[in-house]
Amino acid sequence: MHAKKEVLISCVFLLFATGSWAGEPPISEDTRACLECHATVHPGRLEDWKRGRMATITPAEAMKKPEAQRRVSYDNIPESLNNVVVGCAECHTLNSKKHADSFDHNGYQVHVVVTPEDCAICHPVEREEYDRNLMAHARGNLKHNAVYKALVDSVNDLQSFSKGTVSYGPANDATEADSCFFCHGTHVKRQGTMEKDTDFGEMSFPILSGWPNQGVGRVNPDGSKGACTACHPRHGFSVAVARKPYTCSECHKGPDVPAYPIYSVSKHGNIFSSKGQSSSWNFDAVPWTVGKDFTAPTCAVCHVSLLVSKDGSSVAKRTHQMNDRLYKRLFGLIYAHPHPVSPDTTIIRNKAGLPLPTELTGEPAPGYLIDTEEAQQRKEAMQQVCLACHSNGWVQGHFDRLENTIQTADAMTLTATQILLSAWDGGIARGPAQKDSMFNETIEKMWVEQWLFYANSTRLASAMAGADYGVFANGRWYLSKNIRTMLDWTRFLQRK
Amino acid sequence: MHAKKEVLISCVFLLFATGSWAGEPPISEDTRACLECHATVHPGRLEDWKRGRMATITPAEAMKKPEAQRRVSYDNIPESLNNVVVGCAECHTLNSKKHADSFDHNGYQVHVVVTPEDCAICHPVEREEYDRNLMAHARGNLKHNAVYKALVDSVNDLQSFSKGTVSYGPANDATEADSCFFCHGTHVKRQGTMEKDTDFGEMSFPILSGWPNQGVGRVNPDGSKGACTACHPRHGFSVAVARKPYTCSECHKGPDVPAYPIYSVSKHGNIFSSKGQSSSWNFDAVPWTVGKDFTAPTCAVCHVSLLVSKDGSSVAKRTHQMNDRLYKRLFGLIYAHPHPVSPDTTIIRNKAGLPLPTELTGEPAPGYLIDTEEAQQRKEAMQQVCLACHSNGWVQGHFDRLENTIQTADAMTLTATQILLSAWDGGIARGPAQKDSMFNETIEKMWVEQWLFYANSTRLASAMAGADYGVFANGRWYLSKNIRTMLDWTRFLQRK
Amino acid sequence: MHAKKEVLISCVFLLFATGSWAGEPPISEDTRACLECHATVHPGRLEDWKRGRMATITPAEAMKKPEAQRRVSYDNIPESLNNVVVGCAECHTLNSKKHADSFDHNGYQVHVVVTPEDCAICHPVEREEYDRNLMAHARGNLKHNAVYKALVDSVNDLQSFSKGTVSYGPANDATEADSCFFCHGTHVKRQGTMEKDTDFGEMSFPILSGWPNQGVGRVNPDGSKGACTACHPRHGFSVAVARKPYTCSECHKGPDVPAYPIYSVSKHGNIFSSKGQSSSWNFDAVPWTVGKDFTAPTCAVCHVSLLVSKDGSSVAKRTHQMNDRLYKRLFGLIYAHPHPVSPDTTIIRNKAGLPLPTELTGEPAPGYLIDTEEAQQRKEAMQQVCLACHSNGWVQGHFDRLENTIQTADAMTLTATQILLSAWDGGIARGPAQKDSMFNETIEKMWVEQWLFYANSTRLASAMAGADYGVFANGRWYLSKNIRTMLDWTRFLQRK
Repeated sequence: MHAKKEVLISCVFLLFATGSWAGEPPISEDTRACLECHATVHPGRLEDWKRGRMATITPAEAMKKPEAQRRVSYDNIPESLNNVVVGCAECHTLNSKKHADSFDHNGYQVHVVVTPEDCAICHPVEREEYDRNLMAHARGNLKHNAVYKALVDSVNDLQSFSKGTVSYGPANDATEADSCFFCHGTHVKRQGTMEKDTDFGEMSFPILSGWPNQGVGRVNPDGSKGACTACHPRHGFSVAVARKPYTCSECHKGPDVPAYPIYSVSKHGNIFSSKGQSSSWNFDAVPWTVGKDFTAPTCAVCHVSLLVSKDGSSVAKRTHQMNDRLYKRLFGLIYAHPHPVSPDTTIIRNKAGLPLPTELTGEPAPGYLIDTEEAQQRKEAMQQVCLACHSNGWVQGHFDRLENTIQTADAMTLTATQILLSAWDGGIARGPAQKDSMFNETIEKMWVEQWLFYANSTRLASAMAGADYGVFANGRWYLSKNIRTMLDWTRFLQRK
Repeated sequence: MHAKKEVLISCVFLLFATGSWAGEPPISEDTRACLECHATVHPGRLEDWKRGRMATITPAEAMKKPEAQRRVSYDNIPESLNNVVVGCAECHTLNSKKHADSFDHNGYQVHVVVTPEDCAICHPVEREEYDRNLMAHARGNLKHNAVYKALVDSVNDLQSFSKGTVSYGPANDATEADSCFFCHGTHVKRQGTMEKDTDFGEMSFPILSGWPNQGVGRVNPDGSKGACTACHPRHGFSVAVARKPYTCSECHKGPDVPAYPIYSVSKHGNIFSSKGQSSSWNFDAVPWTVGKDFTAPTCAVCHVSLLVSKDGSSVAKRTHQMNDRLYKRLFGLIYAHPHPVSPDTTIIRNKAGLPLPTELTGEPAPGYLIDTEEAQQRKEAMQQVCLACHSNGWVQGHFDRLENTIQTADAMTLTATQILLSAWDGGIARGPAQKDSMFNETIEKMWVEQWLFYANSTRLASAMAGADYGVFANGRWYLSKNIRTMLDWTRFLQRK
Repeated sequence: MHAKKEVLISCVFLLFATGSWAGEPPISEDTRACLECHATVHPGRLEDWKRGRMATITPAEAMKKPEAQRRVSYDNIPESLNNVVVGCAECHTLNSKKHADSFDHNGYQVHVVVTPEDCAICHPVEREEYDRNLMAHARGNLKHNAVYKALVDSVNDLQSFSKGTVSYGPANDATEADSCFFCHGTHVKRQGTMEKDTDFGEMSFPILSGWPNQGVGRVNPDGSKGACTACHPRHGFSVAVARKPYTCSECHKGPDVPAYPIYSVSKHGNIFSSKGQSSSWNFDAVPWTVGKDFTAPTCAVCHVSLLVSKDGSSVAKRTHQMNDRLYKRLFGLIYAHPHPVSPDTTIIRNKAGLPLPTELTGEPAPGYLIDTEEAQQRKEAMQQVCLACHSNGWVQGHFDRLENTIQTADAMTLTATQILLSAWDGGIARGPAQKDSMFNETIEKMWVEQWLFYANSTRLASAMAGADYGVFANGRWYLSKNIRTMLDWTRFLQRK
């Protein structure tokens, strides 16, 4: 950390002069200037970038590939960017005027937070698709929906004890950023500027709140939403990493959205774990060829990637909307329901006037959810992926079983809801009619677990054929037990 | 999916003509006919098969191997099968008259569900061993045992709320198939025939209920029991996959039978995870050489595989009976006990007349369980595997400790059982004497968790030396806490 | 097992004569004598050793490496050991007079349990560092601290039911060895000698209690503490295995110390899982180069290993003290607090006279914990690792958030503690004032879960940026719910 600047320069020179990085890619002057210091200051970051595709191919070269092999989707790009690899300066000085986090750094206007708006210069289609994704709106959908926000508060608020009872006090931003909004995304704001004494003298840096964060619905200092780095980690930005289930598991492992643990006990997950590390699997190929590059799906196969069969014919189109192969939303809410039309779900109102896609009794909120035709198209898009390996009868049987499971899990949620409604009515718990949170008492929290943990998990275990998780791990056993416990609990409470 | 048939044929021709699959294996005419369409209709399936051993070696060649290297065990085989690789037609048109799921398909009598009876044409010994396995009877043992079936119902039955209380309604077949019987096996039955418009014109297909399923005790349309594909996934049928712990984890990960999570925190599991992907480990070798092909066991090493030492001397014989290296049954039931003699456990009656291998107080049901001599032989068979790496003192110490843990976990279950019996006696819960289920009230469900989750896990954590799981994750902490909670709960109930 | 001795000798000869082990390393005569039989008796063990570094390099050669590449740290070593590889005899006959487990074995004084004292002949620095580690004292710290021992007992003691209530009886040594002390370490003692009929005639072996065990704080038959094999598994003693997170997960996976599950949902864990098996990562390199050998940290990167950047400059010094990059202790105790000065924590007394590093209200016990300056140094040592890839602002933001989370998790623990204190005061539970255990009633066990599971996990999830685990899996959701449940429970109890 205390090496002299001269040493640094020699070091960087050496780095690029050695034969180990043959056919030196065209690096911009600006990026060279960045590397001059940062190669030594943050060596891990630099090496990660160097191994990635961004460091080895220019946008112009990328655009020359046949369409199916392209990872870029731009129409036009500034000439200055087109013929250099995508290095530090290309991203961190782009659109700097829009960036509240820009600062003068050795003569460059640099910003800290690279955003989907920045990435969109080469990947406009992906950015637009992602914006239609619930994930891009994951922060607002939680923060600006009164019901969901009350659930968030019930998790994060501080409780304090006094005179035999407990009261709630509001959670601060740092707590929220370390809890729900770690995955849903923080709002990254500039709070000022600080001076710092560095190895290279005194320097100015922006002070950011809500940082660091790589949540899928992050609100960025340029006003954009999302973080491509949620799935394509810096600074390799690998498609291979994003295609492996470990990436999805960062946010989809807990009992509320247990996609990863369910996948891991499915036959698909077994085959991925058993064979996926072998050299015969290729997680980097674009397009991704069924049977050649992989013989069992990962999350990305079913939900995101451009898939072809060995003869080149299309199996599935690439999408970053994520839910356009999903005909129903299976988790996160009280009951399963057709996917919302708008990724901004704060606009939804059910008949009871609540911002929920269903009534408390389970009926879908009319007008805000995709219609039968759209649902059928999405279902068929998913089934095309299944059919690449499975017969029609297999696929039909699987989806019929899922539909039955959706109905039964919803029915078990309805029963729990009726117990809660009866507790509210009977005055042994305080709900909306008493102007109290739906989520802050024990019996209410049991009810939340009925749908957020057990019904969700049961449905998802069915959808992904990972039954082991949906029985005793986090599914039907508890769906059933929880109802009995709630019932006993209300009886104990009645004697208050 | 809409490519013309001519294109398909060229494509298949190309597939087999390219040098990428050197030394074209002898594929039967019938299988070639299958591939003609299915190569394109289900490309993933075909590629998976092509990479497998079945697609590259004929039974005749397989039988020429030295005995220890053989994966087949047939005495005689129809000439028509002996000199072609095992392709689509070889399995899916075999024994078709026995198969209720057979249907006419372009002039072939094809069946959907390939069964152990079909596989037995080349693997008769494995099929016979597997039939002596509890797993082969996993469906019947659950479905046709009144006590276990009541437990199943308590998990799957729908509960509905009315007038302040909750009642149970029976679960349908689809629910059961998505829950317990996903692993234990469904009964696959033909329900009729349907016509379907396909890319190749209108075609007939059988309608199957209980399908898809790959449960270990599946009852098949030819009357046989089991599914080899539970562990050897279609269409690669790999021995390597079956030998990796991910395969077992499909059904042995939940809190009721947590073999995989225990293994993963054991020293063995660590070494497998840390080194098992290296090229120095060989999961395909038959026989499997201790120290050469692996340096720590997976599930299959201890429970299934043919093991030799580097000089070729035998360490363990191959078995598909699974429990013939197991002297006690540690999980799935109220108390540990010697393994049942018959894999059909529905025949067992304890002294109280219940179909359970022990009394409710823990004593083994006489006459239905293996005797001391057989138990000792099985224990020694397992210990021979341990001794391939560990000294006598180590192994002795390990098994002594396990025996102590079995006793203490059983004692903690007995205490919980006595609390429940006292609750039944005191009229604060309704048990068999009141003609009510043993499993449908909260206090009963707590009792189930005492043995099905906590005592099982504690024993298994000891047996596999994965202590971390057996303390706070799902073991002794809860064994102890649950007793106190049950006690408090009965006191709360008494005030009803 | 029944091969004749002659066969064995030929076999061993063959083993070493074959070209497969080129450039036969200098094996001592004594070790050759061991191998003569053990190569066949325990083939797996031998092969594992043969693949390890110990079997291929002599101490003298190891000491010739440039300092940064050295894995040994000795000043002088007996000549007899210096020029042979480290084989069976080198370890198992070393310091034999100090070893209560020594026994005469074919003319050699052999001991069973190789200890840190034995390893220290080549690795004295590592042994000394490790001795300053809490882990080396993990047994005594649990066993000889009255409060912790009461918690241990509450987990392991047998409960029996009589006359409507339950009483505790003491757990035996075997139970403790299979539970808490499996990881914390047993006391391995010689209990006598036994004669055993072996393939090589009758032989004597020591009878050991507390064996087998590889707990980090094992008390050994030579009086030393610890087990190097806890992290460097026998008989390969690999640095690569110790550097992978699976090793740490053996003891750090359960809900009480869930480092591994948190790591696995962090971005770091994702990158390790996604890329760590690729040939571009090198887990064997010493020193370990950031960006070259790995592009995301494992446990060892942040807590143990000697790290350098590509130009050779130091990022972090190797340490086996483990906590000298840790400024606060986040788990295992009621509240977070500065690390204890002495690894023997039994000496600590808080103001209330309890052997705890904080009061029951959370204030640190003065005089026993590291001071602000030492804490700051440790924090900076850790941050140097972060800075190898991350910018200053990122690191600052991360640690600020952690500090907030420590405070909120502690506050939520305080609330639960106040409920418990109120229950003790109100006579609905029996605590220290009633000369009763703090851990044996339901409400007390709920309180334990508040800190041992939920607050610990919340803090650790923040520290390692694995938020998914710290919300619904085992964190804030339960921190919040548990307080409400405790409150309801005390109300139910009041009506006793």
